[in-house]
Amino acid sequence: MKTLQSFKARTGEPFGAPLPATTPEQVDAAAAAANAAFASWSASPGSTRAALLRALAAALETDREGLVALADEETALGPVRLNGELDRTAFQLRRFADIAERGVPFATTNDPAVAGPPPAGHPAMVRLRVPLGPVAMFSASNFPFAFSVLGGDTASALAAGCPVVVKAHSGHLLLSNRVFGLVQQVLKSQNLPAGLVGMIQGGGSDVGVRLVRHPSIAAGAFTGSTRGGAALQAEASARPRPIPFYGELGSINPVVALPAILATRGAELASTLAGSIAMGCGQFCTSPGVIVLLNDPASDAFVQQLTTALAGQKPHAMLTPGMRSAFDVGVTHMAAAGAQPLLHEAGSAEAPRPFLAQVDAADFIARTQLREEVFGPSSLIVRAASVAEALDVLNAVGGSLTVTLWGAEDDNADTRALVRGATAIAGRVLFAGVPTGVAVTAAQQHGGPWPSSTQPMSTSVGDAALERFLRPVALQDAPAWLLARKGLPC
Amino acid sequence: MKTLQSFKARTGEPFGAPLPATTPEQVDAAAAAANAAFASWSASPGSTRAALLRALAAALETDREGLVALADEETALGPVRLNGELDRTAFQLRRFADIAERGVPFATTNDPAVAGPPPAGHPAMVRLRVPLGPVAMFSASNFPFAFSVLGGDTASALAAGCPVVVKAHSGHLLLSNRVFGLVQQVLKSQNLPAGLVGMIQGGGSDVGVRLVRHPSIAAGAFTGSTRGGAALQAEASARPRPIPFYGELGSINPVVALPAILATRGAELASTLAGSIAMGCGQFCTSPGVIVLLNDPASDAFVQQLTTALAGQKPHAMLTPGMRSAFDVGVTHMAAAGAQPLLHEAGSAEAPRPFLAQVDAADFIARTQLREEVFGPSSLIVRAASVAEALDVLNAVGGSLTVTLWGAEDDNADTRALVRGATAIAGRVLFAGVPTGVAVTAAQQHGGPWPSSTQPMSTSVGDAALERFLRPVALQDAPAWLLARKGLPC
Repeated sequence: MKTLQSFKARTGEPFGAPLPATTPEQVDAAAAAANAAFASWSASPGSTRAALLRALAAALETDREGLVALADEETALGPVRLNGELDRTAFQLRRFADIAERGVPFATTNDPAVAGPPPAGHPAMVRLRVPLGPVAMFSASNFPFAFSVLGGDTASALAAGCPVVVKAHSGHLLLSNRVFGLVQQVLKSQNLPAGLVGMIQGGGSDVGVRLVRHPSIAAGAFTGSTRGGAALQAEASARPRPIPFYGELGSINPVVALPAILATRGAELASTLAGSIAMGCGQFCTSPGVIVLLNDPASDAFVQQLTTALAGQKPHAMLTPGMRSAFDVGVTHMAAAGAQPLLHEAGSAEAPRPFLAQVDAADFIARTQLREEVFGPSSLIVRAASVAEALDVLNAVGGSLTVTLWGAEDDNADTRALVRGATAIAGRVLFAGVPTGVAVTAAQQHGGPWPSSTQPMSTSVGDAALERFLRPVALQDAPAWLLARKGLPC
Repeated sequence: MKTLQSFKARTGEPFGAPLPATTPEQVDAAAAAANAAFASWSASPGSTRAALLRALAAALETDREGLVALADEETALGPVRLNGELDRTAFQLRRFADIAERGVPFATTNDPAVAGPPPAGHPAMVRLRVPLGPVAMFSASNFPFAFSVLGGDTASALAAGCPVVVKAHSGHLLLSNRVFGLVQQVLKSQNLPAGLVGMIQGGGSDVGVRLVRHPSIAAGAFTGSTRGGAALQAEASARPRPIPFYGELGSINPVVALPAILATRGAELASTLAGSIAMGCGQFCTSPGVIVLLNDPASDAFVQQLTTALAGQKPHAMLTPGMRSAFDVGVTHMAAAGAQPLLHEAGSAEAPRPFLAQVDAADFIARTQLREEVFGPSSLIVRAASVAEALDVLNAVGGSLTVTLWGAEDDNADTRALVRGATAIAGRVLFAGVPTGVAVTAAQQHGGPWPSSTQPMSTSVGDAALERFLRPVALQDAPAWLLARKGLPC
């Protein structure tokens, strides 16, 4: 029997007893159980979905102390952050409960018949949305609650009427199992099928790939690396019947700071930015990895301010030893590609020191290695000679979850061009603050052009995340009994 | 210089002088010109977009006589159908003009700041949508107006703020060039850049593939065969930066007719269905290719009625000699795969005779060859022993633009299961009438699971077609000047 081992993030020691890896047969069984649960769940009213989601939120909160302690051992993210993340996860579950209860998944477009010949005349049409089917959900390492077993993908899929099979992340196996135990208790207490939420664990083609290939799986949701996400997306596309695969992948999140704002608020902004780069040891998909500065004395001063502020940051241990060593490799590559280090210290075996380097726009544009995401507390200052060159930098980035524009308060040709350049490559454009921190709200868009996501028309955070799992269907001349269901699938 | 030749559909004779094939350099130039037009067009107000779309509709109508005559020679579809299709095309252009003028592309979700810490507190967010960029639009053979140069893809892309490069279909080259000439006149009269709508013509990787690979192209839209669409989709996905590719591909459009309705209305329904199978010589993506009947005397009678009604149909010449010979190959394959012919006559060199065959559900499910689309006046009756077996037939079809359910007027376990099975595989479910004829309206959904489309969450007909070319972006703490643009891109 294959087994899996959890580790303590701060020391690298084995943590707890080995866990059994899911067998290929068990993967198939989880997908089949999810499919068996699909008929009743997809036809369930909003009140039933809301009751489940709220009970799951409450279960997390009730077990808060034990969950946070376990998560802290496995991830080193610290109790403050982890309690906040648990709050956010419960908030998301309740928000999607409200969305389901309000009837959002059942909303219809009614289009009464118009008499007469086409094109103006047409039969009675009603457009509704049907749930896709069981969703394969791949947990992320860096959000052990909010992008894991009961994270936003699971919450939005359940609210949409889709069962979920979670692929647990190897970085927090014990936590995943404990949360999954809570899920099973809640399902039982609500007389819902155990297979409505399944979980598998293990690596490679025995588990994750097999799940994506399973004929009962109707969609994939993933948060993680570009390489891992691209490989799973290729599997989803290569199926005899391809399925949508919603992957949030790598992102380097440019921050463009114009000289005028740096001249007046440089020290404050440097401190804020340094905090964002080092926050959570830089292990955020929205971590600001590129700082674009125009050639100006205020920019020169800001480079000094940022270097000083970042030197004062003390990042905690990384999530896994693999990420820790990948960080060193990443910053070495960046230096080798011509980025001039401003801050480059060795760090400890578990916790890195922040890395900051600088490069000219022309080099940044010419060398793809400088545009690769370095997961961890690293950022690269890119110096541009003009707004036009700053736009070339954004264009070279090509796709990002976020772009931040500091100093765009006035309407002029430069700011309009920068807004245009930013919206062309990002899912979210910020005009104040830092990109880390993704609000769970109605207007959020977490997903931008490739490589930041595989489906940039969709979002994995915020109310619209639900839409990923619903497909439109038009009913033509539908009978009265079907219309009386008001968008609830049969 | 490579040249292209148009042919008369009814006789196969060369028609008109040879036309120059687009060179690779000209493809690049068309994409570059579209990209150059993107900045101003994406920032244009709804009134500007509406004025262009309405002028294009008027230009088609003004040149109606010449256009229909040319289209009739090249397609053999006949003046009644072609006049109706021109009406529909003008209607679509005006409908998207209205949509742009109403401000639909500029609609925003406003999400004011909420004070306090996260998760409940959040910054001010506004969700809007930005146009993707130049769209590569691949014309269809079977709708020389409505899915060609000025068809729904072009109308919806222009309304969304995206330039278009049309790949003209080889089946109606002269018509495409004449329509493109009208487009250029209108663009000039409105002082819009000629590159806002480009056109290329020719075959293979010199032209269509090169266009999809061009870095300035931001999306693809295609209506045609599964093979052609899948190949272009693979190109779109294999780009260094993949782009969305909206393909409407093959579909066999099952019609499920329950015995009770056949017992009372069999003759009438047989006549209607025969007309739908033979309409336009069966050259519709919504042509009913599979008729699912339960084992019942009323079904037996309906088979006779349908055979008789279909034998009375006189399909006209097919669009091209290639399609004509592919039809013969298709029906031969179907017979070879075990379908028992009920109607199988030779036809003429240009016009086929309708083909009708019958097979058991078990054979249909077991043999993929029986589920391949035969483009032309062909349909296959599948006999099922039970509703459960009829559901297995739908499941084997897997993905279709439409499913038609006749006799589902009452709410019972069978009709609910059939509605569930139909919505699981189709974009549109009809409860009366026939699937041919796709209304251009608010609730339309033309696109279903693979292989009927590459992006089943989108539609290529109806108001929602616009959404294919807009990507959501969240603005966080946006400055007043940007909010004052009310969703209009910079």
